[in-house]
Amino acid sequence: MALIVQKYGGTSVGTTDRIENVAEKIIKFRKAGHDVVVAVSAMSGETNRLIGLASDISDRPTPREMDVLVSTGEQVTIALLCMALHKRGQDARSYTGWQVAMQTDSSHMKARINNIDDHKMRSDLDAGRVVVVAGFQGIDDNGNITTLGRGGSDTTAVALAAALKADECQIYTDVDGVYTTDPRVEPNARRLPHITFEEMLEMASLGSKVLQIRSVEFAGKYQVPMRVLSSFEDQDVNNPGGTLISLEENDVEAPLISGIAFSRDEAQITVRGVPDQPGIAHKVLGEIADANMEVDMIVQNIGDAVTDLTFTVHRNDHDKALEIVQKLGEELNASEVTSDSTIVKVSLVGVGMRSHAGVAAKMFDILASEGINIRMIATSEIKISVVVDEKYLELAVRSLHSGFELDGEAAA
Amino acid sequence: MALIVQKYGGTSVGTTDRIENVAEKIIKFRKAGHDVVVAVSAMSGETNRLIGLASDISDRPTPREMDVLVSTGEQVTIALLCMALHKRGQDARSYTGWQVAMQTDSSHMKARINNIDDHKMRSDLDAGRVVVVAGFQGIDDNGNITTLGRGGSDTTAVALAAALKADECQIYTDVDGVYTTDPRVEPNARRLPHITFEEMLEMASLGSKVLQIRSVEFAGKYQVPMRVLSSFEDQDVNNPGGTLISLEENDVEAPLISGIAFSRDEAQITVRGVPDQPGIAHKVLGEIADANMEVDMIVQNIGDAVTDLTFTVHRNDHDKALEIVQKLGEELNASEVTSDSTIVKVSLVGVGMRSHAGVAAKMFDILASEGINIRMIATSEIKISVVVDEKYLELAVRSLHSGFELDGEAAA
Repeated sequence: MALIVQKYGGTSVGTTDRIENVAEKIIKFRKAGHDVVVAVSAMSGETNRLIGLASDISDRPTPREMDVLVSTGEQVTIALLCMALHKRGQDARSYTGWQVAMQTDSSHMKARINNIDDHKMRSDLDAGRVVVVAGFQGIDDNGNITTLGRGGSDTTAVALAAALKADECQIYTDVDGVYTTDPRVEPNARRLPHITFEEMLEMASLGSKVLQIRSVEFAGKYQVPMRVLSSFEDQDVNNPGGTLISLEENDVEAPLISGIAFSRDEAQITVRGVPDQPGIAHKVLGEIADANMEVDMIVQNIGDAVTDLTFTVHRNDHDKALEIVQKLGEELNASEVTSDSTIVKVSLVGVGMRSHAGVAAKMFDILASEGINIRMIATSEIKISVVVDEKYLELAVRSLHSGFELDGEAAA
Repeated sequence: MALIVQKYGGTSVGTTDRIENVAEKIIKFRKAGHDVVVAVSAMSGETNRLIGLASDISDRPTPREMDVLVSTGEQVTIALLCMALHKRGQDARSYTGWQVAMQTDSSHMKARINNIDDHKMRSDLDAGRVVVVAGFQGIDDNGNITTLGRGGSDTTAVALAAALKADECQIYTDVDGVYTTDPRVEPNARRLPHITFEEMLEMASLGSKVLQIRSVEFAGKYQVPMRVLSSFEDQDVNNPGGTLISLEENDVEAPLISGIAFSRDEAQITVRGVPDQPGIAHKVLGEIADANMEVDMIVQNIGDAVTDLTFTVHRNDHDKALEIVQKLGEELNASEVTSDSTIVKVSLVGVGMRSHAGVAAKMFDILASEGINIRMIATSEIKISVVVDEKYLELAVRSLHSGFELDGEAAA
């Protein structure tokens, strides 16, 4: 008998029928003798409906009131799910964020969880009840409603699992696990039975949108095993499959490469021919940061007393960033400022890289043999990222996928 | 400068445009120097949408979870109204039932308010803020969400006014006040500038559905002056009009009759020729009460050693009540059990009756002169009710309205 925290996202609870299916799934785990605590999102579409109401009224709705507004979405789901459990004879109790004392800081719309009071939940579990908690929301020290930001229900689930010392945190979603790469780009992508927290962080932040990145950080920090599962499949309760995300130590034979992540939302900006002097990078990137934009990759070349600086930002920030850099370019006597918003980033991820040299060389070789020009390179301990022209995205992903022997059976 | 509690119902906040209008209205009162606390309902249609979701899942949804579900409706409105106030530069803060410590008993879906913590509201008012509270909802001693039942937002407003010792509780609705009778039946019906709590209770319970009856009881008990106003009209802040509901004492010249109430939802059941013995009425009416039906008017005639008993119930309860009484009629050897579900009740209401004899005689005279047969009569200190055939409803209301000189300018 285990204590399992399950999280069901918006699509999984998108209709009352689907909520009834979730109730059936929970009861299967109960019948197998497990204790179950559930975190749920708002029914799909509901959060957007609420945000639409707010934007009808104001271009800049107050963050405190946004949290009061959108937190109703999950509150609706917890009530409906408990009703569906009750109808099936399963005792259950719903809790909003404040009822379960999901204490957060006061950063409305992006609050961080500080503490959870597990008292009520423990006594419910002891009484044989399923506990259903509203995801995504909390309460600050002054009794204000807070939310964790989009995707925060994953974090709620992991925080509940950490507080209750659960055996596993199961994230039910509309895919059946984490894949070696996006199956829409590479039909031979394989589901990974296991991946480490570290790899998952690189995969998630690089554009594989299965899990909310903060929840993975949280799970890694508190060593809560997470499992990604399909809410539309019927799992074997004792061997549920999906993808298990846990510590590296459990994995005796880590593969060289776990997966290939990519991101289409990239843009590149280059300043050329700036007279070389200390602090150029800081000056340029500092102003970008001050304007609340995030810089991802950075490359600086120093030539004959002049410097070239290239960096990437989110594609939505391209125009704003370019404007700033053009102004700076004049001040700094740059010979040229150029930009390109038709680039993408492709990354190899794998803890196996740590102990194997030559991964980068093999990667560049594969890309070169396909005639794909690499425009930027960045490496870390467990990933290698390259920037290439947008038009090469599919070719790059597929050639790397087969080149590093990730191909499996074609995904369904 | 006064402290005013305002309540806006579902129609008044039915769209984001209407919520913006409400914000404008509130700001007018603020600009005139008044402190304003607002209680709001769910946007019209929202509560029914939520109940619809619950009934998709269960025929008998758990009351605790129903309250978790439907209380989200008002929570949406408080957030949107605060956003609309903020956009106009008016500082404001929203509170759910639990945030303002609206303590109730644990009767889910029909809870009663025990206590309110005015601490936060006071300091907001001192800081120049408008306070916006979710109507209809509270929290019990165990931290469960409760609701006050349909129409409960009026009660929330009065409870807030009582706790804060407000100068006035203004109920904004889709009519501009309380009328002498329903203008759809009598176009000459007049708006009453003033009515007592007692009269309003009789008017409300008899079918003039302007205010939730419990809120009027509450206002009377705590002597909170209430005012019914149209949310679609532009009031003079210092002389807002509508209908003021307050204690009798303020009214030096109470009119004989304040208004004529009526109810179409009536049915009558008669048991004839029961051998007269003590406890017949108790036996019959006791079984009706045990079956959870409410009996309104009761008439018993005792003839030559036999008794006739007639009573009225809500028209929806007619079939169920008749079945019970037919069974009893056999046991009691009644000569006949009859019923009629095409009757209505018409009532004269007025505190002036207390000091004037002859109101009943005049009423019966007016009805007789129109050829309207009176089937039952019931009187109290400030009202006289008669049961007549359904087909005479309009004629009875109109002839009484002009006979007691209630006619005014035709209502718009």
